[in-house]
Amino acid sequence: MNTNPDKSVTVLGLGPMGRALAGAFLDAGVPTTVWNRTTGKDRELVERGATSAPTAEEAVAASGLTVVCVVNYDASDAILRGDAVTAALEGRTVVSLTADTPDRARDTARWAADHGIRYLDGAIMTPTTTIGTADAVLIYSGPAGLYQEHQPVLGALGGTHTHLGEEIGRAAAYDIALLDIFWTAMAGYAHALAVARAEGVTARELAPFATGIAAILPPIFEEGAVEMDTGTFPGDGNPITSAVSSMAHIVHTSEAHGIDAGVMRAVEGMTRRAVGLGHGTDGFLRVAEVLGRR
Amino acid sequence: MNTNPDKSVTVLGLGPMGRALAGAFLDAGVPTTVWNRTTGKDRELVERGATSAPTAEEAVAASGLTVVCVVNYDASDAILRGDAVTAALEGRTVVSLTADTPDRARDTARWAADHGIRYLDGAIMTPTTTIGTADAVLIYSGPAGLYQEHQPVLGALGGTHTHLGEEIGRAAAYDIALLDIFWTAMAGYAHALAVARAEGVTARELAPFATGIAAILPPIFEEGAVEMDTGTFPGDGNPITSAVSSMAHIVHTSEAHGIDAGVMRAVEGMTRRAVGLGHGTDGFLRVAEVLGRR
Ligand SMILES: NC(=O)c1ccc[n+]([C@@H]2O[C@H](COP(=O)([O-])OP(=O)(O)OC[C@H]3O[C@@H](n4cnc5c(N)ncnc54)[C@H](OP(=O)(O)O)[C@@H]3O)[C@@H](O)[C@H]2O)c1
Ligand SMILES: NC(=O)c1ccc[n+]([C@@H]2O[C@H](COP(=O)([O-])OP(=O)(O)OC[C@H]3O[C@@H](n4cnc5c(N)ncnc54)[C@H](OP(=O)(O)O)[C@@H]3O)[C@@H](O)[C@H]2O)c1
Repeated sequence: MNTNPDKSVTVLGLGPMGRALAGAFLDAGVPTTVWNRTTGKDRELVERGATSAPTAEEAVAASGLTVVCVVNYDASDAILRGDAVTAALEGRTVVSLTADTPDRARDTARWAADHGIRYLDGAIMTPTTTIGTADAVLIYSGPAGLYQEHQPVLGALGGTHTHLGEEIGRAAAYDIALLDIFWTAMAGYAHALAVARAEGVTARELAPFATGIAAILPPIFEEGAVEMDTGTFPGDGNPITSAVSSMAHIVHTSEAHGIDAGVMRAVEGMTRRAVGLGHGTDGFLRVAEVLGRR
Repeated sequence: MNTNPDKSVTVLGLGPMGRALAGAFLDAGVPTTVWNRTTGKDRELVERGATSAPTAEEAVAASGLTVVCVVNYDASDAILRGDAVTAALEGRTVVSLTADTPDRARDTARWAADHGIRYLDGAIMTPTTTIGTADAVLIYSGPAGLYQEHQPVLGALGGTHTHLGEEIGRAAAYDIALLDIFWTAMAGYAHALAVARAEGVTARELAPFATGIAAILPPIFEEGAVEMDTGTFPGDGNPITSAVSSMAHIVHTSEAHGIDAGVMRAVEGMTRRAVGLGHGTDGFLRVAEVLGRR
């Protein structure tokens, strides 16, 4: 095991993701100290060689680099901003892999600067099972030098790591946008499964076609990105009015089965608004431009 | 060119999709008659060898098989249920590739039976550009014999054709569920692009990560289908409570930029309802089961 103290790490937060992170550090031979608010979640990690710290301040004192991965920044602040932990962090680095808003990252950067703590924000874009494998996707923002310094240890988490820039809110901004896509799509899938069941179609019957729908998204996303950046939304192949018609059918079928269609009603509403503003013959992503108007 | 009259086809509706269908039939050498409510949309097709019919009744009289592809069944009914057209269709086959609800397909089956018209419902799951290529995905429901009889001609549309069963509403049910996934996901992408822009992230910067999100959906959809059919929603890796926290961050960031978050508010609402019903430690797709409860 590598016992170079510069290459040790502390993981605060042992939910599913924190445990996956600590496990990947251990697998890579990085000396790893762990702590969690509720005790007992570190048992398996300790068996695998982790050091269990009795308090958060002892945990952060054990390593030059602390990775925090808890539910949100309220939780993260509750841990880091106690006087003892803040004092113990002075001169050390905190990498937050806790998801929250860009504003919370900016606020944390101010707090860190006030207390001589070096701070990098990050976000994990893939499920726990990808951590330590080639499929992990992690993004970071904050001081480039700090990123470079810790990249060798963070690299133990596997996959692709991208530093998005020095502005500390940038990783959270990407994270929010990407989670927006993910959870909205998942909500669509959940709703589709409910409607399919009401129509006598099982989830496993629908699944091969549902994965087909997911498979057509990447090229549509790429084309759409060019449309968004250039402000031209050609609707030749599929005008917004045609989309609105499909949306109305979905709402109707759902509600005829007594299934709440609130999400699709909201989708239809924002889409009809773009039509009402005179964009009915444009492509659907005109909606993004309309949503963002000031 | 194949001039066997049994292998000719009439296409009613020359929007982007109707034109793509007629073009693929022509490319495959199928004698093709076309008609559209608004004249002039058949010019290019006629240059490519299509026969332009002056009226819908003359159009349907020209072929044993009529494919209808208009915006919805209100439009389709306006064309097909006029006395002259209905009379001309007697003994012939109508394949509807017009999207609408399962109930409209069932209603059309009754009308067709009352008038001695053979009727198959279908739906196209891929964009116009896929028609005539290996990427097209079409689904059908209705009498199996009728599907087999016309499959050779319909095969000219390319790609994968699946007969989902005899119950006439089945293709529309799949279509509704799949469009639910598609348009909800697209709404998520549109919203994400608006939020990213407000955060100073361009669409082209976001796109490689957005396509990465789309790429993780197929295995998640497949696992989720098993969860839905078996009624077990393990949340070990990612409990609903964690999803709710992300959703709240998205709403907050969006609204802090003055961007409407109605869709994500609805997503968060339906997700919190599942938590409130005691499923907070389950996986997200418990939401589908809760939505469908009677
Ligand atoms: N799971 C995934 O697939 C995934 C993927 C990408 C990103 N993420 C992100 O990773 C982060 C962690 O997620 P997770 O999956 O491990 O589960 P989670 O449920 O989001 O977080 C659980 C962790 O938060 C801690 N926590 C909650 N409230 C706290 C408080 N007030 N004070 C101190 N600690 C508190 C929990 O401690 P206790 O054990 O004491 O409750 C536990 O360690 C989240 O920001 C999530 O969005 C997760
Ligand atoms: N485009 C795609 O990528 C795509 C993909 C899959 C499925 N689909 C489905 O294919 C169908 C056709 O779509 P589309 O893309 O061609 O465009 P669309 O805008 O949905 O439909 C346009 C067609 O509908 C006709 N129409 C509208 N109202 C009518 C009425 N009251 N009476 C008679 N005709 C009427 C139009 O005739 P006029 O020219 O006279 O207005 C035109 O032929 C839709 O159900 C759509 O959901 C489309």
